[in-house]
Amino acid sequence: MFESANRLTLLEELGEFALIGQISEAFPIKHADVLKGIGDDAAVIRKNDEESFLLSTDMLVEGVHFDLVYTPLKHLGYKAVASNVSDVAAMNAVPLAITVSLAVSSKYTLEAIEELFTGIRLACDAYKIDLIGGDTTSSRSGLVISVTVVGESKNHEIAYRSGARLSDLVVVSGDLGGAYTGLQILEREKQVFLADRTMQPELENFSYILEKQLKPEARIDVRGLLQKLDIKPTSMIDISDGLSSELHHLANQSGVGFTIYEDKIPVDQETYDTARLLNLDPTICALNGGEDYELLFTISVNDFEKIKGNPNFSVIGYCSEKENGINLITRNQETAVPITAQGWTGFSKTDH
Amino acid sequence: MFESANRLTLLEELGEFALIGQISEAFPIKHADVLKGIGDDAAVIRKNDEESFLLSTDMLVEGVHFDLVYTPLKHLGYKAVASNVSDVAAMNAVPLAITVSLAVSSKYTLEAIEELFTGIRLACDAYKIDLIGGDTTSSRSGLVISVTVVGESKNHEIAYRSGARLSDLVVVSGDLGGAYTGLQILEREKQVFLADRTMQPELENFSYILEKQLKPEARIDVRGLLQKLDIKPTSMIDISDGLSSELHHLANQSGVGFTIYEDKIPVDQETYDTARLLNLDPTICALNGGEDYELLFTISVNDFEKIKGNPNFSVIGYCSEKENGINLITRNQETAVPITAQGWTGFSKTDH
Repeated sequence: MFESANRLTLLEELGEFALIGQISEAFPIKHADVLKGIGDDAAVIRKNDEESFLLSTDMLVEGVHFDLVYTPLKHLGYKAVASNVSDVAAMNAVPLAITVSLAVSSKYTLEAIEELFTGIRLACDAYKIDLIGGDTTSSRSGLVISVTVVGESKNHEIAYRSGARLSDLVVVSGDLGGAYTGLQILEREKQVFLADRTMQPELENFSYILEKQLKPEARIDVRGLLQKLDIKPTSMIDISDGLSSELHHLANQSGVGFTIYEDKIPVDQETYDTARLLNLDPTICALNGGEDYELLFTISVNDFEKIKGNPNFSVIGYCSEKENGINLITRNQETAVPITAQGWTGFSKTDH
Repeated sequence: MFESANRLTLLEELGEFALIGQISEAFPIKHADVLKGIGDDAAVIRKNDEESFLLSTDMLVEGVHFDLVYTPLKHLGYKAVASNVSDVAAMNAVPLAITVSLAVSSKYTLEAIEELFTGIRLACDAYKIDLIGGDTTSSRSGLVISVTVVGESKNHEIAYRSGARLSDLVVVSGDLGGAYTGLQILEREKQVFLADRTMQPELENFSYILEKQLKPEARIDVRGLLQKLDIKPTSMIDISDGLSSELHHLANQSGVGFTIYEDKIPVDQETYDTARLLNLDPTICALNGGEDYELLFTISVNDFEKIKGNPNFSVIGYCSEKENGINLITRNQETAVPITAQGWTGFSKTDH
């Protein structure tokens, strides 16, 4: 089914992108009502000529996607839902319902699971969605959470990754790099705690980035904000693996290149200061950090006047010829540097 | 959110039934289009006045639901899909698509994952469904598979667990106990192998029950068989946790009792012989074994003539008053014995 190899291939060599590509090729779509299968933020199933349902799923594994040393279970439940709802927001659609499956060690108490479900319920209320099913089973080691989200949309409003066109503008919501720098602070304090268990973590002055890391919000409001501006995004994706990685997804599926201006990438002051404190480049944090769950999208250049100066959005660049690739115009040198995908590249990544 | 307790409650004390009940109460449904949330084989989301989508999800954990010592990955992939499709069949609906998420150790080879996906693809072809999404991530220990299935149905054809009425007949498809006795043979041969690794397993004479255990089929054909007989089931559930457990689900949700005749419970000759060989009671295997993925349903007593003698189905009893409970009329003594739910009762079960 997959391409044959002369020797056994370790998954970590192949990476997730290649695996998804091989799976996608091996499973051609049979049903005409399945308008989109593998390869976007969500699958799209046609309801009728006007509307569709959307479906997306994510799996979170203890020790890989989260560390219970510094992740309260309530926040974890909230984030598990938010990160899935974000995939529906990334199709310019409206979330409707979720299922939540758990594998938990038998040594978990009901109260611990209750904490997790309290977070899930808060997220269901915040995003006005229903919990409609799931599965609870035992695990021999850590906690595994699998969430599936259902959304809905008018067909003509759905934004795919493939719709970006030459000269379109590239836009992001909110600001970037916060979740990543927040994670670095949590990791630093964990190391301090492990070295001396009487130490209390120093987390003041980091409230914004810690919230971005521990309790991110899905940007389901962006759809309404754009409607008010009378803008339909030509393509869209959520920033879960980092801006660089998402730019590559849009470029690959739309057949375009991108020119991005470093000085236009929105970075919050606390993110900037924390990155500097940790000897990190704030731009690298924004490009490669991931888990911000902001939306990256393209709009027609004709819509520039409508979005210019809007505090919710930053125009960070434009679509160029595919042959130009994806380049960053740096702040200082004003030179173009190729942006490589630094997102999830296999099974070794542990920060999201 | 959940009922408060004076001390920390271990999940294994509470059990899955109680947990599902508590979760269900804590998440009242907000959307009018969600016709059914938690508590049936699948959730039901209204498409329009005529049709709905159905959604169900299951999580399979290595060492809990399957043992890779005797489970080929190809069979595991097939079974993971079949057991989910079975939940759609149990609503008298038609499966349309699945998502598959995996957590795998980085030491798995691509070829191992390919074997798993070969089984998944065979099942997708057999059930005429599309693979439309998923997530692949690393795991720090064993393999975890989470499958979500989407189905569709006309609204008036959906069979819920709550529809059984007094004097309805109780029917099962196929035969029961095979998957459980098959598992006992595999466990026996595993012990032999562990004691002496030069031993080859003795698996001849067990081909039917081993296939029931390793590669069960979802009974998506039952819907069509019943339509041809002009029968609409009044309630339905799939037999994943054992006949006893499923009878209790139907009884609780329909507000009825059941009288079941031991001599009417269909048991294949190979299942019977194997149970005897292993000093097991074949009826107990059929009642409590689980994983047969046959369908248990009720029909109007007026439909008896239509189904009588049909080789695909066995009428095993009838709906009685709720107060009578669920009773088995035994083969020999012709006495009524209460049937207790022996299915999944917590986090200690390892046979499905």
